[in-house]
Amino acid sequence: MANANMNCWPLIVIGGSSDRNQEIMGAFQEFPQVEACRLYSKFSARPSSLEAIPAVIEKAVRCSIYGRPGACYVDMPGDFVNLQVNKSSVKYVKCCLPPPVCTAEHSAVSEAASILAHSKQPLLIIGKGAAYSRAENSIRKLVDQCGLPFLPTPMGKGVVPDNHPNCVAAARSRALQHADVIILFGARLNWILHFGLPPRFRPDVKIIQVDICAEELGNNVRPAANLLGDINAVTEQLLEQLVLMEWKYPSYSEWWKGLREKMKSNEETSKALALQKSLPMNYYTVFHHVRELLPRDYILVSEGANTMDIGRTMLSNYHPRHRLDAGTFGTMGVGLGFAIAAAVVAKDQTPEQRVICVEGDSAFGFSGMEVETICRYNLPVVIIVVNNNGIYSGLDADTWKEMLKSGEPTACAPPVCLLPNSHYEQIMSAFGGKGYFVKTPEELQNALKASLAEKQVPSLINVMINPQSDRKQQES
Amino acid sequence: MANANMNCWPLIVIGGSSDRNQEIMGAFQEFPQVEACRLYSKFSARPSSLEAIPAVIEKAVRCSIYGRPGACYVDMPGDFVNLQVNKSSVKYVKCCLPPPVCTAEHSAVSEAASILAHSKQPLLIIGKGAAYSRAENSIRKLVDQCGLPFLPTPMGKGVVPDNHPNCVAAARSRALQHADVIILFGARLNWILHFGLPPRFRPDVKIIQVDICAEELGNNVRPAANLLGDINAVTEQLLEQLVLMEWKYPSYSEWWKGLREKMKSNEETSKALALQKSLPMNYYTVFHHVRELLPRDYILVSEGANTMDIGRTMLSNYHPRHRLDAGTFGTMGVGLGFAIAAAVVAKDQTPEQRVICVEGDSAFGFSGMEVETICRYNLPVVIIVVNNNGIYSGLDADTWKEMLKSGEPTACAPPVCLLPNSHYEQIMSAFGGKGYFVKTPEELQNALKASLAEKQVPSLINVMINPQSDRKQQES
Amino acid sequence: MANANMNCWPLIVIGGSSDRNQEIMGAFQEFPQVEACRLYSKFSARPSSLEAIPAVIEKAVRCSIYGRPGACYVDMPGDFVNLQVNKSSVKYVKCCLPPPVCTAEHSAVSEAASILAHSKQPLLIIGKGAAYSRAENSIRKLVDQCGLPFLPTPMGKGVVPDNHPNCVAAARSRALQHADVIILFGARLNWILHFGLPPRFRPDVKIIQVDICAEELGNNVRPAANLLGDINAVTEQLLEQLVLMEWKYPSYSEWWKGLREKMKSNEETSKALALQKSLPMNYYTVFHHVRELLPRDYILVSEGANTMDIGRTMLSNYHPRHRLDAGTFGTMGVGLGFAIAAAVVAKDQTPEQRVICVEGDSAFGFSGMEVETICRYNLPVVIIVVNNNGIYSGLDADTWKEMLKSGEPTACAPPVCLLPNSHYEQIMSAFGGKGYFVKTPEELQNALKASLAEKQVPSLINVMINPQSDRKQQES
Amino acid sequence: MANANMNCWPLIVIGGSSDRNQEIMGAFQEFPQVEACRLYSKFSARPSSLEAIPAVIEKAVRCSIYGRPGACYVDMPGDFVNLQVNKSSVKYVKCCLPPPVCTAEHSAVSEAASILAHSKQPLLIIGKGAAYSRAENSIRKLVDQCGLPFLPTPMGKGVVPDNHPNCVAAARSRALQHADVIILFGARLNWILHFGLPPRFRPDVKIIQVDICAEELGNNVRPAANLLGDINAVTEQLLEQLVLMEWKYPSYSEWWKGLREKMKSNEETSKALALQKSLPMNYYTVFHHVRELLPRDYILVSEGANTMDIGRTMLSNYHPRHRLDAGTFGTMGVGLGFAIAAAVVAKDQTPEQRVICVEGDSAFGFSGMEVETICRYNLPVVIIVVNNNGIYSGLDADTWKEMLKSGEPTACAPPVCLLPNSHYEQIMSAFGGKGYFVKTPEELQNALKASLAEKQVPSLINVMINPQSDRKQQES
Repeated sequence: MANANMNCWPLIVIGGSSDRNQEIMGAFQEFPQVEACRLYSKFSARPSSLEAIPAVIEKAVRCSIYGRPGACYVDMPGDFVNLQVNKSSVKYVKCCLPPPVCTAEHSAVSEAASILAHSKQPLLIIGKGAAYSRAENSIRKLVDQCGLPFLPTPMGKGVVPDNHPNCVAAARSRALQHADVIILFGARLNWILHFGLPPRFRPDVKIIQVDICAEELGNNVRPAANLLGDINAVTEQLLEQLVLMEWKYPSYSEWWKGLREKMKSNEETSKALALQKSLPMNYYTVFHHVRELLPRDYILVSEGANTMDIGRTMLSNYHPRHRLDAGTFGTMGVGLGFAIAAAVVAKDQTPEQRVICVEGDSAFGFSGMEVETICRYNLPVVIIVVNNNGIYSGLDADTWKEMLKSGEPTACAPPVCLLPNSHYEQIMSAFGGKGYFVKTPEELQNALKASLAEKQVPSLINVMINPQSDRKQQES
Repeated sequence: MANANMNCWPLIVIGGSSDRNQEIMGAFQEFPQVEACRLYSKFSARPSSLEAIPAVIEKAVRCSIYGRPGACYVDMPGDFVNLQVNKSSVKYVKCCLPPPVCTAEHSAVSEAASILAHSKQPLLIIGKGAAYSRAENSIRKLVDQCGLPFLPTPMGKGVVPDNHPNCVAAARSRALQHADVIILFGARLNWILHFGLPPRFRPDVKIIQVDICAEELGNNVRPAANLLGDINAVTEQLLEQLVLMEWKYPSYSEWWKGLREKMKSNEETSKALALQKSLPMNYYTVFHHVRELLPRDYILVSEGANTMDIGRTMLSNYHPRHRLDAGTFGTMGVGLGFAIAAAVVAKDQTPEQRVICVEGDSAFGFSGMEVETICRYNLPVVIIVVNNNGIYSGLDADTWKEMLKSGEPTACAPPVCLLPNSHYEQIMSAFGGKGYFVKTPEELQNALKASLAEKQVPSLINVMINPQSDRKQQES
Repeated sequence: MANANMNCWPLIVIGGSSDRNQEIMGAFQEFPQVEACRLYSKFSARPSSLEAIPAVIEKAVRCSIYGRPGACYVDMPGDFVNLQVNKSSVKYVKCCLPPPVCTAEHSAVSEAASILAHSKQPLLIIGKGAAYSRAENSIRKLVDQCGLPFLPTPMGKGVVPDNHPNCVAAARSRALQHADVIILFGARLNWILHFGLPPRFRPDVKIIQVDICAEELGNNVRPAANLLGDINAVTEQLLEQLVLMEWKYPSYSEWWKGLREKMKSNEETSKALALQKSLPMNYYTVFHHVRELLPRDYILVSEGANTMDIGRTMLSNYHPRHRLDAGTFGTMGVGLGFAIAAAVVAKDQTPEQRVICVEGDSAFGFSGMEVETICRYNLPVVIIVVNNNGIYSGLDADTWKEMLKSGEPTACAPPVCLLPNSHYEQIMSAFGGKGYFVKTPEELQNALKASLAEKQVPSLINVMINPQSDRKQQES
Repeated sequence: MANANMNCWPLIVIGGSSDRNQEIMGAFQEFPQVEACRLYSKFSARPSSLEAIPAVIEKAVRCSIYGRPGACYVDMPGDFVNLQVNKSSVKYVKCCLPPPVCTAEHSAVSEAASILAHSKQPLLIIGKGAAYSRAENSIRKLVDQCGLPFLPTPMGKGVVPDNHPNCVAAARSRALQHADVIILFGARLNWILHFGLPPRFRPDVKIIQVDICAEELGNNVRPAANLLGDINAVTEQLLEQLVLMEWKYPSYSEWWKGLREKMKSNEETSKALALQKSLPMNYYTVFHHVRELLPRDYILVSEGANTMDIGRTMLSNYHPRHRLDAGTFGTMGVGLGFAIAAAVVAKDQTPEQRVICVEGDSAFGFSGMEVETICRYNLPVVIIVVNNNGIYSGLDADTWKEMLKSGEPTACAPPVCLLPNSHYEQIMSAFGGKGYFVKTPEELQNALKASLAEKQVPSLINVMINPQSDRKQQES
């Protein structure tokens, strides 16, 4: 299945710079592009000649997928486009070998297994690196066989399905705060995981860090054990060791009991919010109904503030590498580009599959014009804009009008507010797709059913919600 | 008048970086932003403390407007937002003095005047720098008093009105190619002016270069005279000298005769194209009708490929600093941001004034979502999308359909083609503005009249043109 | 005279990078050199081909000397060395015109003159920029005609001779602290001038800033008047205006009286120190005797901590651009390179002239091996190492030995101490020059006389001073 | 033994930048140092506060030794020096865990072993990475057990002693050119190894690349097998596999026979050169006599052109990590700094051990002044300057004088020539060390014996050789 491969494709940006013989003369868009891309890429270079292109591309591809994956930049001056070269002088190169796999040393694996076996309140955290290394089978086995609770990071969702009974995402804060031993599978202790520090983590938590990147090991917290290697290979090593030890975490422990209670109570709170009948809808109601209708094999793209945060907890992933969100850097505006890339692959290889692109209205505003591309290539994308007229919170149309009475909007409108009643669905219909403006759960259900059934054109559902809708309070 | 001041405002970008105490920990959007902005700005810095903010802002403002103007970057870490400081410890600073003015040395002025006085085929080129230095009165006097032909660069248009009889823009290639003495007023000999080199210029052309930036003098061509200083002040020096010399260029010269003939023949060609009755319309027809209806004091924003190029020759500017286009760097996507900035000033200070934003359909696609901002702030903007379904040239709807029969659009559609029949006007109506879809000159006239008359909401006119419409051939 | 031209020569660094066809392969010394030099140079580029070399060199030379002068970098890949090119395809270029001169606008000059004319306690500060613009005659006239006190900055020394009666360098702190109007001629208000701020300056001091660089104007202090232009040209403008006003500062003022008293008392203190008979000598004694013997037309190179600081006050300059020291950036190790460059020019054009290189022992340690070059090219250099066995202060040989008794020198020796009794003069004799080890004023006098008389080989005088010798206390 | 640890120490440069509250004001040595160090370091940062120093240092140390080792930069603003902080607010951190070790995946190891077992003309290349990972025992076992020929890279010398019978360094070109299977242990296919390309390598050579850095794998040549992991750990894996296979390379093969013949003939050529009686001596004579006298446990530091190249073949290393030369980047001037660092460790931990620093005269000229430091700390260093009066080749004193008759040395002397008869040994005696000027083998022997016997002070032996002495011709 192609989608499963998505994260392993090399990420190469080919840029076009100005003609070389016009350098320093004020050429069109003359700029030191290789230098400008240095901070943003693993490898940034310009081939010194047409003959050198294959070798530079090979190196860019290789750098992009070997070790910790990352983007690379290759610069092509304008004069390359029409330049000719004798075929015999080109240095042809074969594509690189598949990324090399390395494993952790045996003693570190034993030590990690022993630490885990002595834990009272263990937790697995499954990160993006686990998805990149295709560790889904080995981690699933580890979870199942040892009966361990796990938490996915945003991009680690789906490595083990969100509906697995051991997934404690619904008690995330509790799990992080009380775990005494945590195995990190390709997850960084950055802002997303509160740096691994108190008060969100125990000061004495023992971290077993599994990562492909040596320099990542030990960031912010000194681990109890470092397992350097390919996540999948290391998980298999760990599993083998635990099988030898015949160790299993008891499912009737206090830890499991507490987690299950917390999950149950959190889920009830969410459910209560989701079933509120008042209009405009809140986030939970929207996601509840969307979740009910989505097929399991969809690819989810998501960005926004509350939309991405609440959507992450409410929408489940069942397959690895089927979720694309704003990621560690949290850059808004990436969603539609992600959706297009995923849909181009899906359309070619799994024609029934849909890309569901869940966007906050502000996030959609960054690159909503890409809808033209989606329609031009007739891509299997359903965009859902969760529209609260603002960033974090907007104003309803009446309050907006009232507020503007005191003067110009440029002076009076809070900068987090966007225009009420924006008809984003018309951006889709402007290019021949289907647009839906929905205000009630029923309208939402009908629009989503119709969108999923539609095979000819893309759709956009503009879901009006209460501008004051917010995330439910987090507690430990 | 505020608009006249537009180009003198300092250009400071204030960026927000992550909290300082989370640096190196993997903070949200942690990045060396000051360093990343270095290549793009005259000055890039982060205040070392809250107390230092006024001094850093003062320096950024000063750098931005002193010498050759340019953008500056000031970085504000997230923790600054809520940090408190004792008022008495802040180093308050006054705003800087107005930009200092310098003049050329007397001997260089004399030499330049003498070179000009000995010219047979003189030409003035009026650049962006002339607009920035507010040299409109002095250059106008020079043109009038000495009877000299002049050419504006794209951003220099309006310093002397385009309809001035001495404007030889309609014979641009001829004028550049045969001039024996050229005075450059704040214009660079970069790609826009073909580097000042043959075959677009005479190999023996004598350049008199007037610029505020010493390092710009002599780029690509060794000038006959360098006049370093503020463009306006130097023009006044030159004028004074020429008055003393009582020199005037004869209006009955062969040079003027040849230029006038060329202008007449080029204008006739344009007019013939403009008056073609066939549909879909071509570029010349569109701009001809737009030109007829626009008021003189409008601010023009323009971007696109052919749209910007042909629009530049067909739409006149009557005031300096009233035109904003993609500029030297030719970056697409800047148009709507420019329009918003210009309109915010206009709305406040000259409420009757309109910002006319002429966009190619591809250019509009970069940041068309900014229409939401235009509508939210109810800005006096009329957007005209000149829609040829593509970049340089698209396909009509029938040909597009035909072509797609052979397979997927991702595989078959030429990358320069955009979706035919895109209803960009609906992007405007989606946010409450007025949208017009026009196919004929009459529809265009009616839509533009209505848009200009409309005081309540912004408008967008989507003008369908022949996808094969092109620029008329250039000749010497 | 060539030396007078020294500061106007373009400063271009030509660097050699690896062969282009080995880029990204791990070539010998492969590195992005153009990028690495960006932060350090006004212009950094690699010619895109052999044909482009002349144009890149022309631009580098031009950038280096137009506007505020600065260093430029041009990169030459290794394969250029043996590459051949058809002569007809090379784009030959002429050397650029001399740097353009600009003047301040008339109104600013008038305002500045008026401010000066109303001052009670005026002061001129003569900076490096005045030397670069060859403003010696005009500034000298200004000083003489208006009877104004002046202070040179380290690299501005000699624009007006240090022994001019209006030079108040001996009362520097007093002059800075009490001046009510200061004209800065090409001097920056940086650390060398205490940022122009209290307590070293009056809070209400009126600065008249004369500079070639617009962005420099207003740094740290908001000037009372900005005069943007070539220092020499602007000084002439100012002079012309003051002549018209017939203004002269009274030589019997309280201000002059106070300055003269302070100078006298400071000079007496220095003299007392200089004439101390105790051995080892102190700094003042050394410089006193050196000063007595040096000819007036020497070029002085100087670096070190106390050596450079005290030497600046004790050794006079009589000609502009005859002094080279560690400058604004204060980088140690530049002295011998400076001496070699100055001496190569001197040897060729003014064979009698000597370069006197006064070095602290620590500073000499950075690049003392350059003595080989001085001897190889037989350059007219006399090096004086003022040797206190350390940085700021060392230890005498006995204390050093005592201290080491407690253990290893790596553990016990203060890091500011260098080896006592180092025979730096042997570095010179190792390469065939003359070396002198001197401990008394008489030995110093004899060695310096011999060195100056010697026409065949360079000399080095290693002057042992009291390791505890220090700068005399500064006071207002 | 400490020296054996030398290469594992973290390499952190602590830099001092100007006071933070003077930033943008023109502070002393104000510069964006963190940014300037970015291109040169694995990690470059400034702690945001005193409290953050421990965490930044920990991260710098960790980055420097985890994964592929490299230098890191930590910036300390001047105001940190005297700033105070409440002890309780400092975030103390423990030192990081030892570098994590990873191993290659089993299947890759098997494949590599199989490729090796099928080779006809195998070769091991032992690089710097093997030394860094302390793989000496495992690689030695591999060599011994399988009977394989090996070649060390310059910094890989000593991992297996140079006098091991399987070392084919004396037939380097032959071995590289004809090997059909090469195992690279932590060596890069860069310029030092001729990029792994023909004509220096077989076009069909099968490379088995063992490296700790994934992105290094496949550079320039597509390997037959990639073994990603710690060199020592992977070598043990490979050894285990080969033991299982009971494979051994036959010592009577044609390959061994050819290599042994070539080694013998090359060694005879060298020996003939070494035993030449003519004076001045040539390189081979010098190194021959030095080699005879050096103890086995010395640390060798080496830099220069011919001196480093020929010295590498003539001087043997018997222990890993006991050789420091100019390395991949080939930067001259590093030798004395290396010698000091090595000697400080040696003096503390293995007091009998000597650092032998073999320098070309040009290389010594870069940082010869560091002799002061060597003498100040009384370090166990013997410097041997192999003096040919130039770079690659100089001139003898008579020819030099003759040449200069035609004019000034600045004009006439070839730039590769240094001053003949320079007495570098006096640089050492100037600081109290022992200096020797030697012209004959006997003098050289006596001086070296005396230097090695001397326990009180460092020595420098200035060895005069024939300026025309050169490297013997290389052939396949």
